[in-house]
Amino acid sequence: MKNIQLIIAYKGTRYAGWQRQPNALTVEEVLTGAIEDVTGEAVTLYGSGRTDAGVHALGQSANFHTHSRVPPERFAVAINTRLPGDIRVLSSCEAPEGFHSRYSAKGKVYTYQLYLNPVASPFYAEYSWHIHYPVDVSSMKDASAAFLGERDFRGFMAAGSSVRGTVRTIRAIAFEQEGPLLRITYTGNGFLYNMVRIITGTLAEIGMGRIKAEALPGIIASCERKQAGITAPPQGLFLREVLY
Amino acid sequence: MKNIQLIIAYKGTRYAGWQRQPNALTVEEVLTGAIEDVTGEAVTLYGSGRTDAGVHALGQSANFHTHSRVPPERFAVAINTRLPGDIRVLSSCEAPEGFHSRYSAKGKVYTYQLYLNPVASPFYAEYSWHIHYPVDVSSMKDASAAFLGERDFRGFMAAGSSVRGTVRTIRAIAFEQEGPLLRITYTGNGFLYNMVRIITGTLAEIGMGRIKAEALPGIIASCERKQAGITAPPQGLFLREVLY
Repeated sequence: MKNIQLIIAYKGTRYAGWQRQPNALTVEEVLTGAIEDVTGEAVTLYGSGRTDAGVHALGQSANFHTHSRVPPERFAVAINTRLPGDIRVLSSCEAPEGFHSRYSAKGKVYTYQLYLNPVASPFYAEYSWHIHYPVDVSSMKDASAAFLGERDFRGFMAAGSSVRGTVRTIRAIAFEQEGPLLRITYTGNGFLYNMVRIITGTLAEIGMGRIKAEALPGIIASCERKQAGITAPPQGLFLREVLY
Repeated sequence: MKNIQLIIAYKGTRYAGWQRQPNALTVEEVLTGAIEDVTGEAVTLYGSGRTDAGVHALGQSANFHTHSRVPPERFAVAINTRLPGDIRVLSSCEAPEGFHSRYSAKGKVYTYQLYLNPVASPFYAEYSWHIHYPVDVSSMKDASAAFLGERDFRGFMAAGSSVRGTVRTIRAIAFEQEGPLLRITYTGNGFLYNMVRIITGTLAEIGMGRIKAEALPGIIASCERKQAGITAPPQGLFLREVLY
C-alpha cells in the first residue's frame, strides 16, 4: 500500500471549510470524492488541519493510503480532471509509510491579507479584509514583536474551543505592503483555533488606535479572550504552507 | 446643471458587459440606478465605451448631467452605498460642461492577464487566461513590436463589426511577469471591437509556436481576420484607464 501526499490550493469562498460535515459542501468531501474516482477505492484523507468557511489555501497538505497503481506523481493531474476549478492539486508524491499530514507537521505558515483603502476593491472582496479607516501599519509592525517566541496563546483562541495545551511558538511575523494590500505572514510551530485571525484583528485594532500597543504584552499575559481584539474575517486568511 | 465624471472599477464576472441590454444584468444599468437613487432624477450615463461580458475595469470613466446639489466629490461615497460590492466608484468630480467620456477620450490603457502554468489557479480563474502549454514569453515580447505605431487593424477586429475607420495607433505594449502571471499592457489612441483580445490571442499563439513571429507583419498587412490568431477569452481583460 502506498502513502500519497498531496499539496492543494483552494479558494474557500464556496465551501463550509475543509472538514467534512453533514449538509454542507466541504473541500475534504469534494477532494475525497475525486480521489476515489481515480483509485476506485474508498479512501480516507488526512488533512494537516481544518480551515474555516471562506478561508483559502495556497499549500494545504493531505495524505491517503491506496493500492492504486497510478504513479504517485500522476495523481495530481488525474485528480484535477475530476475537481471543480476552485480546488487544484498542485503536486502529488509518495510519502514514507509513517507520514501523516497532521501529526508529522512541524509548523505552518499563514498569510492574512488586508485591503487598506477608503474605497473597497471589487477584486479583493473575497480575498481580503477591507478596512476603510486610516491604519498606522508601522505601529502594527512594531507591536507584532510581542507575539514572537513561545507564548501561552489561550487569550487568542476562539472562546469555547477545547485543546490540551495552549502554548505555541511564533517564529516570524512578516509585513509586506503593495499599494492598499497589506499581507501579514505568520510562521509558527502550530496555531490554535482562530489564533491567526484574532492576532490579526488585535494588530488591526492597534493600527486603528483602538488598542494601545503598550497594552499588548499585558493582554497576552492575561490569557483572557475578552482582553484581545476582534477576530479578523475569514476571507483574508490563506494557509500558505505546512512545514515538515 | 453640473457635469459629473466618475472613475469606476468593476469585476465583470456577474455582468453581461457594460452596455444596457434587455433581460441581462449590465454595469451601466446597475450604476445608473444607483446614481438616480442619489440624485432623485432620471440620468443618462455616458461611458467611455463598452466592455464585454466578463471583462473587468480598474478605471472606467463615465459622466452624467445633474441638477443635484450633492457636492461633486461626494457622489462617489453616496453612489457606493447603493452599489453591489463588485462595482465601486473610485472618485467623482465636476467636469467641464462639454466633457463627454467617450468623445473627449484621447486614448485608453488595457491590461490583459495570462496565467502561464501547467496547473490552473483557483484564485485567478475569473481574472486571467490560463494556458497550460509552455509559452515563450520573450518571443511574444519581440513580436509585439510589429503592432506599435499607426496601423490598419481591420484584421484584428471581431468579424462582422462595423466601424468607419479601422486605423488605430498603439503607443506602447509593456510586458510584466510575476511568477506565473503575465500582464500585457496596451496603450493606444483607441481600440476596435475585440482588438486587444485578438492581438493577445495572436501573441499567445506566437508564444506557443503556432504562429511564426516572422509572419506577423504580413498578417497585420493582410487586414484579414482569419489570418490573425484566436480571440483571447474575456476574463483576462482589464480596462485600466481612459486617457483625456
